[in-house]
Formats: sequence, C-alpha cells, structure tokens
Amino acid sequence: MKEISKLMNYRKDVRVVDATLRDGGLVNDFYFTDEFVKALYFTNIRAGVDYMEFGYKASSEMFDETKFGKWKFCKDEDIRAIVGDNDSDLKIAVMADVGRCDYKKDIVDRNESPVDLIRVATYLNTIPSAVDMIEYASKKGYEVSCNIMAISNTQERDLEVALDILGQTPVDVFYIVDSYGALYPEQVARIVDIYKNAAEKYGKKIGMHAHNNQQLAFANTIEAVGDGVDWLDGTYAGMGRGAGNCAMELLLGFLRNPKYNVYPVFQFVDKYMMKLKEEGTVWGYDLQYLITGLLNQHPRTAIQFTKEGRKDYFEFYREVVTQD
Amino acid sequence: MKEISKLMNYRKDVRVVDATLRDGGLVNDFYFTDEFVKALYFTNIRAGVDYMEFGYKASSEMFDETKFGKWKFCKDEDIRAIVGDNDSDLKIAVMADVGRCDYKKDIVDRNESPVDLIRVATYLNTIPSAVDMIEYASKKGYEVSCNIMAISNTQERDLEVALDILGQTPVDVFYIVDSYGALYPEQVARIVDIYKNAAEKYGKKIGMHAHNNQQLAFANTIEAVGDGVDWLDGTYAGMGRGAGNCAMELLLGFLRNPKYNVYPVFQFVDKYMMKLKEEGTVWGYDLQYLITGLLNQHPRTAIQFTKEGRKDYFEFYREVVTQD
Repeated sequence: MKEISKLMNYRKDVRVVDATLRDGGLVNDFYFTDEFVKALYFTNIRAGVDYMEFGYKASSEMFDETKFGKWKFCKDEDIRAIVGDNDSDLKIAVMADVGRCDYKKDIVDRNESPVDLIRVATYLNTIPSAVDMIEYASKKGYEVSCNIMAISNTQERDLEVALDILGQTPVDVFYIVDSYGALYPEQVARIVDIYKNAAEKYGKKIGMHAHNNQQLAFANTIEAVGDGVDWLDGTYAGMGRGAGNCAMELLLGFLRNPKYNVYPVFQFVDKYMMKLKEEGTVWGYDLQYLITGLLNQHPRTAIQFTKEGRKDYFEFYREVVTQD
Repeated sequence: MKEISKLMNYRKDVRVVDATLRDGGLVNDFYFTDEFVKALYFTNIRAGVDYMEFGYKASSEMFDETKFGKWKFCKDEDIRAIVGDNDSDLKIAVMADVGRCDYKKDIVDRNESPVDLIRVATYLNTIPSAVDMIEYASKKGYEVSCNIMAISNTQERDLEVALDILGQTPVDVFYIVDSYGALYPEQVARIVDIYKNAAEKYGKKIGMHAHNNQQLAFANTIEAVGDGVDWLDGTYAGMGRGAGNCAMELLLGFLRNPKYNVYPVFQFVDKYMMKLKEEGTVWGYDLQYLITGLLNQHPRTAIQFTKEGRKDYFEFYREVVTQD
C-alpha cells in the first residue's frame, strides 16, 4: 500500500518538471514556434509547474544548427527572448548530454544566465564524465540533476556503485529515466528503493522520467510518488520521443498540492497540442512502442517504423523478435 | 511492494477474459462481422485466453433487435454458428445486466447452451436482483460472476455489506468494475483488500475490469494481479466504451504464465483492430475521458462529445465542471 494519506494531503517537496520542449523536441527536431514556447511558458506559470525544460545544450560542433530548431542548443539569448528576466516562480532547466555538450564553452555563470537547473543526462557507463559535468555546473552556481538513462537495462549492483559515486558530488537530484518504457510499477518500486538508500545517505532528492510504451508512464510516475520520489517529469499531451511521456494533464490532475492547477493545462493542450497533432506531428502509445518496451529495447526501430508510415505491426514484431 | 516473485513465476489461478465483443460492442452497437468474430475466437484459443465474452443477453423486449448487432442479444444459436461445439479450452461468457435481461426466458440449461459463464452486472443498489439472477444461473448449471459497476462511487461500508450478501450466493467471482476509469492503483489496492476479506471468508475469486480514462486500465489491472486478483479482463487494442479497457496485448505481454501467447494477439490487432479504427470506429484515451475520469463521473457526456466530433476540449471541461 502506497502512502495514500500523504498523497491525499500532498508532499510539499514534490516538484513538477515540464519536459515538453526537450523530449517533445526529439519528435519535431525542436522546431517549435516562439508563440508556442511563450504560451507554454505562461501556461506553466499559471499551472504552478516548478521547472520548465527548454531543450538541450547540444554541441554546435557535433550538430548542424541549420538542421534543428533552436531548442536543441538553448542559447541563453534565445531563452531570454521568451522569458525576459523570468519574473516568476517557474525555474528554467536545460539538459546537457554527456559527450554531446561543450559545457565548458556553453555553460556560463548562473548569474549571467536565465537557466537555473542543468540536467546532466548519462548512461551508466559514462558516470565519470557525468561527474565532471556535475561538478562544473555546480561550481558555476546551478542546481544540478543527474538523469541516468536506460535504467531498465542496468544491473542493480552497478547502479548502487554509480549512485555511490554520484552521492559524493554536489548533484541535487538523482533521476530514474525509463528510456525504453520497459518498467512495470513493481520494478519502479524496487529501483526507487535502491535510489532511496543512496539519496538518504547523501542527502539527495530522487526524480522520475517515464516513457509510455506500455501505457505506464503516468502509472510509473505515481508509483514513484507513492514510494517517495519528489521530482516528476511530465509533458503536455505526453509529447515525447516515441510513445511519449507522462502527460502533464494526468499528473496535475492527480497531485493534491493546491499550488498546481490543471485548468490552464487543458487550455494549452486544446489550443496548441491538438494543433501539433493535426499538423502531422506523431507521438504517443502505439503497438510498435509496446513491442520494443516489452522486449526492453531502445525504441529506435519503432521510431523508424513510425517515420516510414508503416502499419504492418505484425511484420515489425517478427523483425524485432527474430533479429540477433 | 507487490508479489513480484509470484508474478515472475506466475500464478496458476489467473484467468484472462476477452471482453472485446461485449465492451467493444458498446462502441459500434455490436455490429461485428462474422469473419471478425470467428477470427477473434480462434485468436483467443491460440493466445491461451481463458474466456471469451460474446456480448450481452439483452432483453429483446426492451431493445429493438433491428437497431443493434446480434451480440447485444447473444442468442445461443448465433454463438453456435461461430464456435460449433466449441471443442477447445476457451470458455464462453455472456453478460446479463440486472433489469435489462429476461433471464428466465433467455437463459436455458447449460447443457443445452454453448455458454459456460454468466456475468451478472449490477450497481450496488440492485444487489438483491443480482442475487436472484446469480441463483437462477447457478441452478441452471453455469459458472457465475457478479460484476459490481461504478465501484469508484461506492462507499466502502456499503460495499462490505454487498459482498457479504453475495458471499452467501453460489457466485464464483466477485468483480471490481471501474466503470468511470476513476481509480488510481492505490485505490485499487484498497478495494481489493475489501474484496479479499469477503472472498476469503466465502471461498470466492476476485476479478478486475478496468477502464482507460486516465491511461491506468493496464496499470490498475496489474496492480490488482499483484494484490491477489485472479480474473483479468482485457480487450484487443483496448476496444471498449469511451476510453476503452486494458489492452489484451499489454496484459498477455505482462503475464508470465507460459500458456499465454502474445504473438497471435499482435496478429489480430494488426489485421482486424487497426482496420476498425481506419473505418472510423472511435475508442480510446482522449482528453474528454480523462476529464470525466478525474471527476469520477459516468463517461456519457464524454461519449456524446466524441460522437458529435467535437474538438473543443477546454469548453467541454468548462461545461463539466460548471454543471450542477
């Protein structure tokens, strides 16, 4: 039984992070209009969302700036053009991928930047590089999270070692990232237990970023809340890579904290997200994502299937299970 | 923590019920082609599904037979035309609604019928009539379940009394029916506890029928499995009233019992369910169903919104929250 009394009465430490531009940007190569981004920003403020992630701090040497929208690079001046001095309670986040970010060049002192939180994304095998980035960003004055991707493929003892290393850094939040949408709530509970041991030892918070391959992004997120996870990622209409994420409208509908307000969220989804869908941007639960999730695989084959407009789901299943 | 070791190793008592024709029939007024129904029947056999629900035993005095497909009435001869002597391990179920079924006329002796299981559907305020039907069907030789609808609106003490009454009947299975798709997994766990007290006292099994208004039909079903519920309803591609049900392809992907096989399920979804969608049959999670689920309301207003092809979700939200 989860901490339902605490849920009914809400936990003050819960933080909601809107990852629409960042994870959703993986669907449309980060081509959002300024009108969309501004409306999203003001919606987040009205909805009481705690952090808005604008995108990636990607290396402009590794990625061609003419082939992506600006939120793949999240230059400070582009964020400023949306938020001005950000005179609000909403904090600004960006993601920095280990190995794909020129952080020493692109991440300046926090007091010169509109950004509050750097989310360092890493696989388990690049933890030492993540540690470098965490220490750098923390020294520059930022809040820092470490988002461990593909968590469903990690061995628990490796994860314990990684969290022990990260615990000794100035990172603020350990994130669980179910990149493959492969976890069931029971497994989330087990992983949270592992995170909790390290988080309590080192005085860190825990976060959850879920994917919807098996229609469990929301369920896994609220499982995590019940287990003691405070930082929760959502995206409007669940927009995100492949099967997408935990929908903000579901998450804020669930949370009892009176500072959250689902009303402007419905308004934004109606006006902006449905339009994206009508214009042909495709994301969300579908059979090909269930298949890769079930098999605990990276969704790239399913994404390719979607891009090609294929509908032969059964043939796809055969391809996936018969490949070596 | 759920009984994950038991899940990994499966419980022999788990029974999967395919409710596609019955709950899905609410979407298309039960107009399925014979080809569809036959293919579904053989798919269920290949997939190891335990029961296939063909539809309702609705009163032909209350409902006009020219306005619905035959699976609203489930005459024995129509079932026989599909299954012959049903020389398989798949059992046949029909649903009988309290107050909408001429059961004394339409339910004959089991040895004259292809049907194995009568599912008596009732609200909490019609339990005495449900008891009459249960006793009648049991005397005729059928297995019987009692499906208590709109469970999210019941008071727990009333539910305890109802289960105590039902416990004294020959009913085999107490079903939890989340008609409004309003429950969170934590609440499912609490309700299962109440059911379990009565089920253990009277030697009954427990079943779960979930709706997907908040993308939790699958999550609530596997929560229930972990809590000790044995009878699990699914529908292909989640087809069912409004936001639909727990998808069979998700459920069989999750269950570890080697008798279940998800392969033919993908095949059927690919070939038949996608076609239904392409032909314009509409079901599944959408914002209007989230809204009624969140507010713990019957989905009828959301279904009407869908039927009218409305897309003004935000106006719908205003209508729903401002109505008396």
